[in-house]
Amino acid sequence: MNKEQIAVKMILDRWNASIKNLDVVLAALNDDDLMREVAPGKNRGYYLLGHLIAVHDDMIKLMGLGEKLYPELHEPFIKNADKVMVDEFKVSDLRLNLNRQNEWMKQQFDAFTNDDWYDKHTAVSQEEFVAEPHRNKLNIVLTRTTHLQYHLGQLKLITKHDN
Amino acid sequence: MNKEQIAVKMILDRWNASIKNLDVVLAALNDDDLMREVAPGKNRGYYLLGHLIAVHDDMIKLMGLGEKLYPELHEPFIKNADKVMVDEFKVSDLRLNLNRQNEWMKQQFDAFTNDDWYDKHTAVSQEEFVAEPHRNKLNIVLTRTTHLQYHLGQLKLITKHDN
Repeated sequence: MNKEQIAVKMILDRWNASIKNLDVVLAALNDDDLMREVAPGKNRGYYLLGHLIAVHDDMIKLMGLGEKLYPELHEPFIKNADKVMVDEFKVSDLRLNLNRQNEWMKQQFDAFTNDDWYDKHTAVSQEEFVAEPHRNKLNIVLTRTTHLQYHLGQLKLITKHDN
Repeated sequence: MNKEQIAVKMILDRWNASIKNLDVVLAALNDDDLMREVAPGKNRGYYLLGHLIAVHDDMIKLMGLGEKLYPELHEPFIKNADKVMVDEFKVSDLRLNLNRQNEWMKQQFDAFTNDDWYDKHTAVSQEEFVAEPHRNKLNIVLTRTTHLQYHLGQLKLITKHDN
């Protein structure tokens, strides 16, 4: 394994471990728990769950993998803040969406070659990419991993109650 | 810039941006704000600030850069949970420690060559490293960046009051 392959492994390991952490945190909370705010007046678990799925859905487009799986989540979970729109989705359905999305993305990622990872993402032009070769698909995974960890730290604050 | 250098840049960019985010979050809170819990019954800002400095201090050893700058922070901020020990430090001093540590680490990181980044960290043996070349210094920065983002998401929940 050469250094550029090692770097890909390092970043994918962090992504996969973070997705696994998310699964563990969500598995410890029931659907009612997830309707609670992570702290008084802050986002609810429901919103953060939808937000993460919607942000990961954007990765699909940025990485040139096709269309979003759940475009209906953009409006309530990215464009708008929590508690602005009526709650349209069931927590149980969001959980299923997340699981399907994780499986689908894993299959896609497994098929990437090393060169694919260092190839430009779709929001950068070929011209810009020559000067800024770090704007590649691997960087999409890296930045969304840190985004996921940021919200994981918040989700972890929801206290489990006996419902 | 070849791919292995691009990967180093990507990971250091995320570290530097996360440290910058931490500065911005801390600058928006005064010392009294930081004595508050991020959510009811959870860690205080004070503890998370000390915890991050202590964890970053461990990086110094793991990356073979010498001894910790603030070994006295290990006991109250890593070994023990929040509110177990008497609060021994002033928030203002912790802020200074963090700034000095960030400057010192930046100087050290700036002097690293590309090969240094892919060299083994100090907690792995030469033998293990042959089989697991991802256990390098760059990975220390990557894993601590995700750790930092996890706690950043929590610090961001502290509401600023007019003290």
